[in-house]
Amino acid sequence: MTKRAPGGYGQQVEGKRAVRELLVAGRRPVREVWIAGDGRDELAELGRAAGATVHLVDDADLARRARTGAPQGVVARAEPLEPVALDTLLEDPAAFLVALDGVTDPQNLGAVIRSAETAGATGVVVPRHRSASVTPAVVKAAAGALEYVPVATVSGMPAAVAQASRAGVWSVGLDADGDTSVYDLAVADRALMLVLGSEGSGLARLTRERCDLLARIPLHGRIASLNVAAAAAVACSEVARARDR
Amino acid sequence: MTKRAPGGYGQQVEGKRAVRELLVAGRRPVREVWIAGDGRDELAELGRAAGATVHLVDDADLARRARTGAPQGVVARAEPLEPVALDTLLEDPAAFLVALDGVTDPQNLGAVIRSAETAGATGVVVPRHRSASVTPAVVKAAAGALEYVPVATVSGMPAAVAQASRAGVWSVGLDADGDTSVYDLAVADRALMLVLGSEGSGLARLTRERCDLLARIPLHGRIASLNVAAAAAVACSEVARARDR
Repeated sequence: MTKRAPGGYGQQVEGKRAVRELLVAGRRPVREVWIAGDGRDELAELGRAAGATVHLVDDADLARRARTGAPQGVVARAEPLEPVALDTLLEDPAAFLVALDGVTDPQNLGAVIRSAETAGATGVVVPRHRSASVTPAVVKAAAGALEYVPVATVSGMPAAVAQASRAGVWSVGLDADGDTSVYDLAVADRALMLVLGSEGSGLARLTRERCDLLARIPLHGRIASLNVAAAAAVACSEVARARDR
Repeated sequence: MTKRAPGGYGQQVEGKRAVRELLVAGRRPVREVWIAGDGRDELAELGRAAGATVHLVDDADLARRARTGAPQGVVARAEPLEPVALDTLLEDPAAFLVALDGVTDPQNLGAVIRSAETAGATGVVVPRHRSASVTPAVVKAAAGALEYVPVATVSGMPAAVAQASRAGVWSVGLDADGDTSVYDLAVADRALMLVLGSEGSGLARLTRERCDLLARIPLHGRIASLNVAAAAAVACSEVARARDR
């Protein structure tokens, strides 16, 4: 059963890494690629090979077409990606999900998705409201990871955590006061969902309460907190490391 | 011997976290703080307690004074931080240095410095040229870490790596093709310098050749690379973890 939720995303892809992965992955039709250049570069060739119409434009044209501040000379339009239902992600006995509650910075959201994919995560979970949605800036920062890692959008994170519990998937909230170190995460090789809070205030109270366990990243300096993207990179890496053994 | 190199940095501090740490750390005199608000917030109190002149201004005033796009309602001016000599950092028998070769994005540079500090790094090494320098955007992204972690600026990274070797400090280059996994870094608890390359092309050839060993972060997804800030977070965390044991 692969239920589909409404609301495609990722039609506009900008930046060299993200467009390259879009064209190489071949997961969805690519309609058009605009490149500021002479058409002899690798992306133009990949675009033509993928069946897209390649437009060679000047920098001003490209800037008008871009929806991020720094498209790095390339913009593509593709069929949207479709979110999946959380239940579908939870069915995977090796589920490794990364849920983001209230991350509002597109750079951070994209960076977390990129780190999740490189660590082998099987899905990303984001709330439909009070969070960054999957905008072109997120797609660019994810550097192609969105071609591979499915995204489930949920109406609220506390309900999603409860849903994970019912499905037998461990929910692990990242929290500065967590009682377990992420370095000793006994459930790392079980089906699990890492839950990360917002940049400013961390996990919301109800989300924190519903998590099966709270894990902290041990800090060894004097400043109080890691950036959410750095925390995600470390936690995802720890899960990958534990699963490697 | 604590040699000092010329070239202060960090006079302008913006953003709530960075200004808060500036005021709390008490490492250097803070002259003035501009706050868009009613002066009753915590930062105004901390500013007055630190002996700074606190100016309550409107958003437009603050925006004119700011040198980053998002000062989060607060800008401070302080005595500059002074770079230290690399030799001074290398003298520490527990040295844990993070060297950045050619990282040009201020967000990335600041994020790496923040992750380094939270992992207990004893210093950061940046080249004077062909890299982002410690601008207000870097100071803001470092979220206060620069109050605590000293920075050495060097004329070139290959020479800095050679200098580390002469001082008996292991140089560990992060490289996608490294022969050691960062999860099995035997020298993690020795005096060491992690060396990270640029966002686009990684370590320069000469830098790579001079490193004592090359370590990779195992990747489990289908995209080819981690963001440099995420790679730094994972590698720094692995060093901290190994030193914890």
